Amino acid sequence: MKRKGALIVISGFSGAGKGTLVKRIVNECDNLSLSISMTTRSPREGEVNGREYFFVTKEEFEAAIKEDALIEHANYVGNYYGTPKKYVEEQLNEGKDVILEIEIQGALQIKEKFNDAVLVFVTPPSAEILRNRLVSRGTETIEVINNRMKRAYEESDFIEKYDYLLINDDLDICVDRMKNLIDAFHHAPSCNEEFTKQFKEDLKAFK
Amino acid sequence: MKRKGALIVISGFSGAGKGTLVKRIVNECDNLSLSISMTTRSPREGEVNGREYFFVTKEEFEAAIKEDALIEHANYVGNYYGTPKKYVEEQLNEGKDVILEIEIQGALQIKEKFNDAVLVFVTPPSAEILRNRLVSRGTETIEVINNRMKRAYEESDFIEKYDYLLINDDLDICVDRMKNLIDAFHHAPSCNEEFTKQFKEDLKAFK
Repeated sequence: MKRKGALIVISGFSGAGKGTLVKRIVNECDNLSLSISMTTRSPREGEVNGREYFFVTKEEFEAAIKEDALIEHANYVGNYYGTPKKYVEEQLNEGKDVILEIEIQGALQIKEKFNDAVLVFVTPPSAEILRNRLVSRGTETIEVINNRMKRAYEESDFIEKYDYLLINDDLDICVDRMKNLIDAFHHAPSCNEEFTKQFKEDLKAFK
Repeated sequence: MKRKGALIVISGFSGAGKGTLVKRIVNECDNLSLSISMTTRSPREGEVNGREYFFVTKEEFEAAIKEDALIEHANYVGNYYGTPKKYVEEQLNEGKDVILEIEIQGALQIKEKFNDAVLVFVTPPSAEILRNRLVSRGTETIEVINNRMKRAYEESDFIEKYDYLLINDDLDICVDRMKNLIDAFHHAPSCNEEFTKQFKEDLKAFK
């Protein structure tokens, strides 16, 4: 019986470890595709078009918006970021799970369009640990760190809009928990519409 | 950090194996309480008041409805069945999960009142297996079995209102899947309100 894939949206505070978590999940889960965002920002060193992002011009991005070819998009610090619709829908219909790592604004847009999307919010175990992680990266100024903490405060209001809150204390445990969540999503009725339809058809014969 | 318990509502076709599943889950999960329903039907042989049901009179049941002491109630074949509110709320606030096995009508009432309740629909892997299970019980007439199949057909319309569809092919696998689902429920934001509140408080200090 064909099962539809689950659309899994990951957001969380900067410093929560989302990127590492997503990388592990993509590597360790069969039948799961990573959605690649489209952006108008310039590639950083080492970034490859079609791997980290699809890098496009402002005109190309705005054409995609016009054609309704994005399931969500947002503007951060003067650059567009968005999720191409075609790839996500193709993968889901093939029964593959799709995972996306995006900001809260985009995640909530997706929930509106894909009611069955599963929103997971990743957080460190405490605010202090969040700050320590940002500090220990050693790449950001104290001003940037303070801004991230401020932003985390604003973002924490949206946690309740998410389906799951995943506390990233130990990465291995967090990966296992995330795999459990993915397993749970497969039991959503929306992933099993074909089963239910067939079951109902068969029940009809017995009526 | 105190975590609120999850309210888990199990429904499913007659013959799906809900009763056995619930018994296993109650025996094998720590920190989980079985909610006991109240009914006006007479106890069957071997049934104990306060174990299978709280057996009450029609007057007592109607007084409970009036006092808003039930989180759901319904009338089947001339008898009332309902879920006492006090016990459920006490257990959830103590951080215990509560599991209830009830009919669809009652399950949907609960979802309206407890938005965070998790509704699980249990089904055999096929309509044919459902019928075989009912037949192999050897306790029901063919007429009763046909009525159950007809009712299953009507009930199948409500599957999509549930949060999870659990296919009971092999009981051991089904029990494991259910345990995974319970683990997933613990990551719902509603179970972790205290964590989020504390986190936000702490973030405030860094703002």
